[in-house]
Amino acid sequence: MTIREAAAFLQARNRFLLLTHARPDGDTLASAAALALGLRALGKTAYLLPALEATWKYKGYVEPLYAPAGYAPETVVSVDIATEDLFPENAAGYKGAVTLSLDHHGSNTFYAENTCVFPDCAACGQVIYDLLLALGAPVTAEIASLLYIAITTDTGCFQYANTTEDTLRIAANLVACGAENAKLNKIFFRTKSRPRIEIEGLALAGMEFHANGKVAIVTITLKMLARTGADAGDLDDIASIPNQIEGVQVGITVKEQTDGSCKISVRTSPEVNANAICAAFGGGGHAMAAGCTISAPVEQAKQLLLGTVREVCQ
Amino acid sequence: MTIREAAAFLQARNRFLLLTHARPDGDTLASAAALALGLRALGKTAYLLPALEATWKYKGYVEPLYAPAGYAPETVVSVDIATEDLFPENAAGYKGAVTLSLDHHGSNTFYAENTCVFPDCAACGQVIYDLLLALGAPVTAEIASLLYIAITTDTGCFQYANTTEDTLRIAANLVACGAENAKLNKIFFRTKSRPRIEIEGLALAGMEFHANGKVAIVTITLKMLARTGADAGDLDDIASIPNQIEGVQVGITVKEQTDGSCKISVRTSPEVNANAICAAFGGGGHAMAAGCTISAPVEQAKQLLLGTVREVCQ
Repeated sequence: MTIREAAAFLQARNRFLLLTHARPDGDTLASAAALALGLRALGKTAYLLPALEATWKYKGYVEPLYAPAGYAPETVVSVDIATEDLFPENAAGYKGAVTLSLDHHGSNTFYAENTCVFPDCAACGQVIYDLLLALGAPVTAEIASLLYIAITTDTGCFQYANTTEDTLRIAANLVACGAENAKLNKIFFRTKSRPRIEIEGLALAGMEFHANGKVAIVTITLKMLARTGADAGDLDDIASIPNQIEGVQVGITVKEQTDGSCKISVRTSPEVNANAICAAFGGGGHAMAAGCTISAPVEQAKQLLLGTVREVCQ
Repeated sequence: MTIREAAAFLQARNRFLLLTHARPDGDTLASAAALALGLRALGKTAYLLPALEATWKYKGYVEPLYAPAGYAPETVVSVDIATEDLFPENAAGYKGAVTLSLDHHGSNTFYAENTCVFPDCAACGQVIYDLLLALGAPVTAEIASLLYIAITTDTGCFQYANTTEDTLRIAANLVACGAENAKLNKIFFRTKSRPRIEIEGLALAGMEFHANGKVAIVTITLKMLARTGADAGDLDDIASIPNQIEGVQVGITVKEQTDGSCKISVRTSPEVNANAICAAFGGGGHAMAAGCTISAPVEQAKQLLLGTVREVCQ
């Protein structure tokens, strides 16, 4: 479906329920919230299926839009969900029942009756922006801020390679519409908790280099978590640190678990396949970002990983 | 001067020498380089005064544009320089001789014969962009990449509060003109040298908190530099770290200098005036980002700063 067709489709329907994906990020949540507000401004009834896994940073934006118990939708729209496998648990009943999928993933499986997918868009927020314009819905300051969250969280605040001219131009329009870019950047990109700062310091101080600096390993032990008071939320994106170092092709993050195992994140440069490294331990993911679990203590896990990295790099 | 007047002025002159500020950053260097290329495209002769302090990240972009020995300029233009105190040493001879100052600092002292200053521009790169359009100079891919560097380095890749609708719209236009945003973001924002990672670890580990966590101080000593092998280029943007911590309103970075003094960077939340803190020590800058030099050893400099912060915060 084109944007115009999707707009006409939404215009002709009512009583919307908007679905977001499992382990929801800023793009799925804020895109769905922006669409709900846009549809409401057109006189429609629109709610989000409660995103029970939304983390504290996003909760305040989406919670007021959650569908009340017993809400009977006529039109189910999925937002930023590439496949039905990514439906959260409470959306299981809507498998096979989505009438419109709005998405930006090239991997969209066309599970919905109608699909409007633009893989060139860095964020689903860009699709929703174009859709609201096509619908003639007002881009209020509130909607603009939501779309700004959607776009910036999926582009690392315009730093990732997916950022295009369109991404920046839409962001400019959103700021013109009242998006609170400075405030939102501060919340989503420039605020770190003290435990986060402390654990980052320990992680950097303890970083190990191997294979002539091509492999870097960051270790997060239970002791470090206890000492700093850091929790899972404080470890967000810490796996992206080692691979940012000049000359490093394989950045590994080893997180010690309470059950004695280690959770491993691997981020690689294009010349090394992260998925192949993690697959050796029963894990997987993408070519440049993958993960696995190794049932061994920290030091042993590192040695096992280094052995596999040497094989894969040959 | 308006942009049109500045364009007419440049159009009427020739044999330009462009000055950049001491301890040059991406904005002053890349803005000057973009302007030089733009003027050359109009058939003018234009060079940069060699920026002897340019760090390795920027050197490659500006070095080919350095004025040859014995170059006799007719028109001296300063780029992104608020006061003559910020002239680098080799520009001392041009004090009182600048015919046009192109700038975005509200603190510009109007030391030049003509001044074209736009304090609402996040970066001097925005002023140069508007100027090149007014001049009818082509925005080639090379110029677009330079202006992209200028704008992103002064806005923390669009994260700082100085980023406006215009900033983002110009960035969109630059990407449309061929600015290599993905490659440049990787170089300037997503690559860290090993010495940088190591000094960042030491800096985080040694961070001090004062005033119930409202003030955070990062210290970079000569010892830390020696131990990690970090140079000035590795310290880029390190001043933005302490003010990112939750609850911190004043983030201070103290860098010990070889002459026994300390270079101070102050970053604040909107409720505290960074400029006022630095002005107390003969420095200055913007409301939320300023700097100064204190002729005292590290510990004494910190105490002096804390005293002033207490006064300013009252």
